[in-house]
Amino acid sequence: MQARPHIVIIGGGFAGLYAAQALKRADADVTLIDKRNFHLFQPLLYQVATGGLSPGDIASPLRAVLKSQMNCRVILGEVLDVDPDKKKIILRDDEIPYDYLIVSTGVRHSYFGNDQWEEWAPGLKTVEDATEIRRRILLAFEAAERETDPEIQQAWMNFVIVGAGPTGVELAGALAELARYTLKNNFTFIDPAEVNIMLIEGGDRVLPSYIPELSAKAHASLERLGVSIRTGAFVTGVDPHCVHVKEGDRQEAIPARTVLWAAGVQASPLGKILGDKTGAPIDRLGRVEVENDLSVPGRPEIMVIGDLASFKHQTGSPLPGVAPVAMQQGRYAARRLRAMIKGAPGQPFRYYNRGSMAVIGRAAAVADLRGMRFSGWPAWLIWLFVHIMYLVEFENRLLVFVQWAWDYFTRNRGARLITGQDLIMLKEKKEGRAGKKR
Amino acid sequence: MQARPHIVIIGGGFAGLYAAQALKRADADVTLIDKRNFHLFQPLLYQVATGGLSPGDIASPLRAVLKSQMNCRVILGEVLDVDPDKKKIILRDDEIPYDYLIVSTGVRHSYFGNDQWEEWAPGLKTVEDATEIRRRILLAFEAAERETDPEIQQAWMNFVIVGAGPTGVELAGALAELARYTLKNNFTFIDPAEVNIMLIEGGDRVLPSYIPELSAKAHASLERLGVSIRTGAFVTGVDPHCVHVKEGDRQEAIPARTVLWAAGVQASPLGKILGDKTGAPIDRLGRVEVENDLSVPGRPEIMVIGDLASFKHQTGSPLPGVAPVAMQQGRYAARRLRAMIKGAPGQPFRYYNRGSMAVIGRAAAVADLRGMRFSGWPAWLIWLFVHIMYLVEFENRLLVFVQWAWDYFTRNRGARLITGQDLIMLKEKKEGRAGKKR
Repeated sequence: MQARPHIVIIGGGFAGLYAAQALKRADADVTLIDKRNFHLFQPLLYQVATGGLSPGDIASPLRAVLKSQMNCRVILGEVLDVDPDKKKIILRDDEIPYDYLIVSTGVRHSYFGNDQWEEWAPGLKTVEDATEIRRRILLAFEAAERETDPEIQQAWMNFVIVGAGPTGVELAGALAELARYTLKNNFTFIDPAEVNIMLIEGGDRVLPSYIPELSAKAHASLERLGVSIRTGAFVTGVDPHCVHVKEGDRQEAIPARTVLWAAGVQASPLGKILGDKTGAPIDRLGRVEVENDLSVPGRPEIMVIGDLASFKHQTGSPLPGVAPVAMQQGRYAARRLRAMIKGAPGQPFRYYNRGSMAVIGRAAAVADLRGMRFSGWPAWLIWLFVHIMYLVEFENRLLVFVQWAWDYFTRNRGARLITGQDLIMLKEKKEGRAGKKR
Repeated sequence: MQARPHIVIIGGGFAGLYAAQALKRADADVTLIDKRNFHLFQPLLYQVATGGLSPGDIASPLRAVLKSQMNCRVILGEVLDVDPDKKKIILRDDEIPYDYLIVSTGVRHSYFGNDQWEEWAPGLKTVEDATEIRRRILLAFEAAERETDPEIQQAWMNFVIVGAGPTGVELAGALAELARYTLKNNFTFIDPAEVNIMLIEGGDRVLPSYIPELSAKAHASLERLGVSIRTGAFVTGVDPHCVHVKEGDRQEAIPARTVLWAAGVQASPLGKILGDKTGAPIDRLGRVEVENDLSVPGRPEIMVIGDLASFKHQTGSPLPGVAPVAMQQGRYAARRLRAMIKGAPGQPFRYYNRGSMAVIGRAAAVADLRGMRFSGWPAWLIWLFVHIMYLVEFENRLLVFVQWAWDYFTRNRGARLITGQDLIMLKEKKEGRAGKKR
């Protein structure tokens, strides 16, 4: 009697979790390992950062999602290393052997070698990132309210978002709505609507990976919300008080106390480790350049899927790091391994692009669905429907999301909590004053 | 022309917030100061600690609650001192003069002089406390799942809750439901239902402040959920691996990796500061012994309300530190100050006790409403109705709470996130093993 093969999946994001679920009826034991005990619905993370949703609303415990799947075990642990020759992975506190390995540990934001910027310009990948950004945004308004020096006060009202991909665009739109509508009449000495939100992009338009028509629509929507957009501009430095920007030959220091980073990604460390251990080619972002069946060259038993994979066999350039690619690769990985276990031949992976979309604000979005382009209300409704459907798939939280959609529509944002660290000193100039609410 | 008087309220809990709201039509400027930017619905904090609700679900931004109140300003700040002679308060970064002062900064948990226990036995007063307790509870199950030494594994499955007042009883009940129902089939090597939850109380029964009949009902409900209760037992020490308990002459060390503290409170530091500065009597817990109109003796312009006040004029002993007392004192404080401003005479404060209740779990609660006693289903429905109504009062979150009540009824707990600190080493013994899901 032969033992059932053991499939180990590292990472419970869209790619890893969809692979695990699609292995439900496979004749194999599956182990899913993640550093966190929950799957995160990352496309809505910017809503947590702007107080529209709570972390718990967009996180599903991995054990709960997989509890009825009898062949799947979940391990909470951090994978430090892989040994492809001995076919085992090394956790911080354990070692686990595998017959087949799926690596889907994704990417983190990148500062292009300037990691010292992170302190002043946090990125948005984890729930902790999101609550930290929420804390900074809300504290900036509190500090502006207390500050009596007009120059410092203005610096608190200046927000800079670096990078105009979907995350940067969505953050800018949500921040503008928070300031202009949700916080209306909340303060005495400042008018939050007078906020200054700058979106800085190195490319020549917002949403550079979308078709130009939708970029133009998104641009117009953002400007309608009061966001000022600077394209062809590169950040050359970030410090506690300023963002330094280069536009052509012109160098400028923009005073801003709140800077958010949405400008680039780098692969998680397992990419480089796999490259070192297997000789697989690694691209400039640290992603593994996989074969057309998503396997690591020369190691058919190891697959890399999701954002960590660079798959160039379809279009010549890597597929974008978005949830639909990860989900399809997860399902494909399960199908391929089931075939391999049975000794059946496999097909190369192929991505079916059903479209892309981005949301700018209430009733404002852009969508490109297989050539059909939508913007404004219809795009927003499509966006809402797609996101609610995915969320409800994992857990029965329909009412929470109906409530949230309603709040979003009415511009209420209930989860505006400043949590975590101690209060900073909000006021730099010490002077009393009295005033009536604005 | 005389300037409008300035009323400063320190603390945006039930007492302070209700006072601010009740001053809406007062001919005065009101300033509400709080360290946090939100009002917290503390009676449901144990639900956050056990993954049933997210912090955002039970927190309302103070600025949002008060935004339509034109005579009320909100300041996010920490009050360090009060100067009753110069009639001003001192913030960390500012000074604010007052004509009338309401102090409602409440209480924190107390370790009766053994503050070193806090590291191993966190208490439950803030949202950070709640997410920390949630983290510890969920990590304990993860560690038990990974551990191969049966003794250490058992220690991870032992939970001790110190103190059987409403918070301790509610925590014990919610933890039992989490383990026995929500986490069912979530693990491979442990059965969470085999958890060992011990509730330790120094008094002779659970819920010592309730009538004995309801204590007995709560006791029976907890035992039905598998909670073991030890009354007349005092904690003499807490360390990373054990709780030391004294029961009569018997001293015992109970191995437990998770200890939660619900055993006592002490007043926030402003109580003692007021005592030092005004000569007002301070009780053993640090609370201010107020006059029958809730003012500080000899300082009619300063009132202390909510948990920070010790009001003994009605029953001879201090009123309990519960939300209804705080709300009624908040409304009374506003009424009294409005009368004072007009020069009208006031009435002493009087608490109308509409009842008390505690919830043990799904469809299990006890309630004593003006002599009418309920338990089980009817008490649970009353509890649910009262809490949902209060929550909806601040913000329109009806659907969120309907969803939550449904989750609670079906024993789903969606907010089971381990967030914050890095992962601890979950496994102490290094050995591999394989297993099928239980």
